[in-house]
Order: sequence, then C-alpha cells, then structure tokens
Amino acid sequence: MGDDQQDAAGKPGVNAAAAVHLNPVGTVRSRGDRKIIELRPELAPALEGLTGFSHVWVLFWFHENDRPEQRATLKVHPRRNPANPLTGVFATRAPVRPNLIGLTCCPIVGVRENVLEVEGLDAHEGSPVLDLKPYIPRSDARPEARTPEWVKKEERW
Amino acid sequence: MGDDQQDAAGKPGVNAAAAVHLNPVGTVRSRGDRKIIELRPELAPALEGLTGFSHVWVLFWFHENDRPEQRATLKVHPRRNPANPLTGVFATRAPVRPNLIGLTCCPIVGVRENVLEVEGLDAHEGSPVLDLKPYIPRSDARPEARTPEWVKKEERW
Repeated sequence: MGDDQQDAAGKPGVNAAAAVHLNPVGTVRSRGDRKIIELRPELAPALEGLTGFSHVWVLFWFHENDRPEQRATLKVHPRRNPANPLTGVFATRAPVRPNLIGLTCCPIVGVRENVLEVEGLDAHEGSPVLDLKPYIPRSDARPEARTPEWVKKEERW
Repeated sequence: MGDDQQDAAGKPGVNAAAAVHLNPVGTVRSRGDRKIIELRPELAPALEGLTGFSHVWVLFWFHENDRPEQRATLKVHPRRNPANPLTGVFATRAPVRPNLIGLTCCPIVGVRENVLEVEGLDAHEGSPVLDLKPYIPRSDARPEARTPEWVKKEERW
C-alpha cells in the first residue's frame, strides 16, 4: 500500500458524502485473446488461496468513460438499443453511471505471483482493477432471481 | 477524474494506478431491523426500472475500516477464526482490503423516490453506498462454483 491514504483515512467521523479514494490494485492486460490481471507486485500475497475458488468477482473501473457527462448520466436505453425502455442506470449494468465500477464474475484460469488469469472478463485493456473477491455461491448465486423482459432478450451488460 | 492524482500516478511504471475518485451515491440507514439506502435526491431517476428485478447488488464502503493499517492488510484468517487458514484478502470477503469495497446481493423490498429498501444488507449504518447494479442470473448466478472447505463451514464473509 502507498503512504498516500491520509486523504480518506484522515476524515474523522467520516460523513458519508465525503469522497472515497481508491488506489487501483492492478490493471487489465490482454494476452492474445486472453485477459490477465496484473496486480501491483507488492499485493501478490493477497491472492493466496484464490485458486481454491473456481470463480472470482473482478471489480474494475470503466476508465474510458471517466468524464463528467458519463458520470452524470442517470438513464440509458439498455445495451444502447432504443427498443429497450429508458431505464435508470442503477437498473442496468451500463458502463456509464455515477461511479464507473464494473463487476464481472469470471472463471479463474490460474494465478502466478502477482498475475491472475481469468476467462470472460469484459474489461478493456488498461482498465484499473479495484478489487477481487471470491465467488461464494451461498450468498452470490440466485439463479431464481427475476429480471425484466429486456434482460432476457440478449446478452447482458 | 480529479486533478489530485499525482500521488498514485507518481509511482513509476504503474500508470493505471492513478487514484480513482468516487462520490458516494447514498448512505445505508437503519430503520428498526430494516435497512434502507438513501440516495442523493438528485439520483432518484437512476433507480427507475430497478423494481423489475428481484435482487440488487449493493456496493458499499467499509468506512469504519478506512485506516492505512486496514488497507495494508494482505492476509487474514477468514471470519477472524484462527482455525481457518491464513488467506489472501482477495480470496476472502473480509472488510479489510486495499480498497474497502463491500459487495452484497440483496432482495429488493421496494423503491420510493430516492429510497431503496432491501433485505439482508450487512453494511453498517452510515456506510457510503458506491453503486447499485441489478442482479442478472445469466452472468451472476454460478451455483456450481467451487470453494475451499473453510467457506462451507459457516456463513459467508
């Protein structure tokens, strides 16, 4: 960890509206048609035990959309399809939203030192990675969850 | 992005490590034994359509742990149980990690204006909420996912 966290930590009493400061833990890299996550080398110990899981949540930053207008977007047509109803961004997985966090569940291919290889990561090359979390079916798997019709039509975002 | 990223960005070779700035979209509030998420009023339109889903991902900030030592913790005994193997934080859901993001799938009770009521949210009163995302089984439900033994013993974190 850096020594530059006094911004966030130094706010006593932490009122919830205070800005939150994140230091990316790594970066998405393309290796041919594969995606790897290259962590900051000093964070390699934080991966220990991850290969005991088959899937990982990758939380990343849609850095290419980090502009005020994208972060002020409150409604979109999901999947940019005008046939889908205009919908609040919190009811979509659109990469425009107040905080540009992407969340994808990925099968784990392997870990070597500070590098994690995964499948199915829809983050672009260079995307900052914010966090990694193991997939725990008891809390995360809700196959019965209900969705609106537009979700069922195509692949997700 | 802000204009104060020189701290993280100044680390050579780690361009993606430029700090990321989030403005919380709301706050967790307790109402008796229920939890509500009170969004900033101007963000109410971003909730439109969310009740078409049965479940929502709540991304929040473990604000009570926002201190350098918690953010520098790389390994823990999961669930603070010394019988569980010392494990990298990215292989746990522990509320100590480099970026203190919590992720919980919650059944949706209802939405009224800028207030979302959910079940099962394990965030404390006052926790900043960073993002909300609809639960989409096709991408999010992996009931077959494999976990290590310690996960199976008790409830999650």
